[in-house]
Amino acid sequence: MSSLTSPQISAEQSAREADLVATVVASFDGAEDARLKQLMQALTRHLHAFVREVRLTESEWEKAIAFLTDCGHITNDRRQEFILLSDILGISMQTVAVNNEAYANATEATVFGPFFVADAPRIDIGGDISGGAPGQPCWIEGSVKDTEGNPIPGARIEVWEADEDGFYDVQYTDDRVAGRAYLHSDADGNYAFWGLTPTPYPIPYDGPVGKLLEAVGRSPMRASHLHFMVTAPGARTLVTHIFVRGDELLSRDSVFGVKDSLIYDFEQHAPSEAAPDGRSNAGSWASTRFDIVLAPASEPAS
Amino acid sequence: MSSLTSPQISAEQSAREADLVATVVASFDGAEDARLKQLMQALTRHLHAFVREVRLTESEWEKAIAFLTDCGHITNDRRQEFILLSDILGISMQTVAVNNEAYANATEATVFGPFFVADAPRIDIGGDISGGAPGQPCWIEGSVKDTEGNPIPGARIEVWEADEDGFYDVQYTDDRVAGRAYLHSDADGNYAFWGLTPTPYPIPYDGPVGKLLEAVGRSPMRASHLHFMVTAPGARTLVTHIFVRGDELLSRDSVFGVKDSLIYDFEQHAPSEAAPDGRSNAGSWASTRFDIVLAPASEPAS
Ligand SMILES: [Cu+2]
Ligand SMILES: [Fe+3]
Ligand SMILES: [Fe+3]
Repeated sequence: MSSLTSPQISAEQSAREADLVATVVASFDGAEDARLKQLMQALTRHLHAFVREVRLTESEWEKAIAFLTDCGHITNDRRQEFILLSDILGISMQTVAVNNEAYANATEATVFGPFFVADAPRIDIGGDISGGAPGQPCWIEGSVKDTEGNPIPGARIEVWEADEDGFYDVQYTDDRVAGRAYLHSDADGNYAFWGLTPTPYPIPYDGPVGKLLEAVGRSPMRASHLHFMVTAPGARTLVTHIFVRGDELLSRDSVFGVKDSLIYDFEQHAPSEAAPDGRSNAGSWASTRFDIVLAPASEPAS
Repeated sequence: MSSLTSPQISAEQSAREADLVATVVASFDGAEDARLKQLMQALTRHLHAFVREVRLTESEWEKAIAFLTDCGHITNDRRQEFILLSDILGISMQTVAVNNEAYANATEATVFGPFFVADAPRIDIGGDISGGAPGQPCWIEGSVKDTEGNPIPGARIEVWEADEDGFYDVQYTDDRVAGRAYLHSDADGNYAFWGLTPTPYPIPYDGPVGKLLEAVGRSPMRASHLHFMVTAPGARTLVTHIFVRGDELLSRDSVFGVKDSLIYDFEQHAPSEAAPDGRSNAGSWASTRFDIVLAPASEPAS
């Protein structure tokens, strides 16, 4: 980015600063790995442009060093503050965007998040992923197709979500497996399962990233969502969420995961209303439809 | 910085990426602290521009997270890997540049470094800072003046340097105090002391920053230097180094601290040659002259 404002500095000062950038960029010229060289040189240019544009003070620089140090010290096997930092700066989401380019009518991707587990249980079509997790039952059905409209049978559909208290199973200290499963699309490319109506939850906010959010007046809450990862031979893997239309957090999701195309109507039903699969529910339940479109694995160069 | 190359992406894709940047920037609009808002918005723009320009892959993003995590875990009370990272990207030096703007003929500033100690011993003019540290004796003399050429008497001059083995006193596990002291300029603004002829040393390179330097083919060595910090009432504090003309490391100092104006001739003398203060040296010795010019504390707006 170019500076939006030109600070009042002398030509001599400006030349000194530009010379320094050129010297640092040139210091990477000898890197054997051409990609690493490109990354370091681009990073150098953008970071220096930042420092010069904002005229970073020495005490601000010290605070930045202390902030990164705090992030490093709170990070362990179960807590990753640098990913949170990347998330709340939208860098995680931008990386997803860059690596999942718009392709015809393919379903948009969004952030993966830290709560996926590789060995979730398998369910049949119409099965229930909740595993006893508390929340309103929700029937989710849809199709998996390619961008030409051909059904994709046998696509592997991983789904995972938080319970109504805002926690994923792996955040509890017991060994529960709940709110996650995988299933396959049928011969016509269709799928359906029982889950929970998604509810909001905060990203961990008791560390330096949480303090930063508070200092800038931002909430740590994520808009209500249900995670999907869909894989099929010949198709680009889709990692995405569906969001609940009407959720007041949609416009201020803390990690910028919301895309308009991923917001769906969740219809509310009375307990007495018959479910699509005939299951009777003791309380109210919800339903939605999410039709998935997968891009081809290797995109033709545009 | 604007992108140097425009990756081949569709207008739709480009719009998605730009929309995301705008959304993240807007998320800081509510920050009460106007400066924090400016910093976070500018940082967001430059980091996103980087990710978009290089088309950062998801595995590169993961490596970056792991790199920052490693930096965090090696950092403790005695080791600061984030400062090293800032140093080798020239960010520390750029911050120094931004905060010490070119002013008339004022001596240029350079990086502070991690080895300053606040309670160094006081010496008189002509005293010796080496404290038994091994190295070639070196007579350093000069004047302290303002930018109008008026001598500044009583300026406090802090000096510190590594020994010829490449270590500062604080890097040894004993409690030695060596290679550091402070003195004051005399009534005519002059100063002189015995130190050691500066020799090169590496920044700590056994951590992630060292690995990065190796991967890009850069040396961790710093050009030979002697640190100065000069303070006087009404003057802008000067933190700088002097470098040794002819040092082969001048063009590739690992932290970009070298400025042409800070390179000085160090004259070599035979043991038999009389020193300026009459001291007799058992071996060869060196000498140099460093005339210091301090900018005023409050610069007039340019
Ligand atoms: Cu930039
Ligand atoms: Fe989630
Ligand atoms: Fe040093």
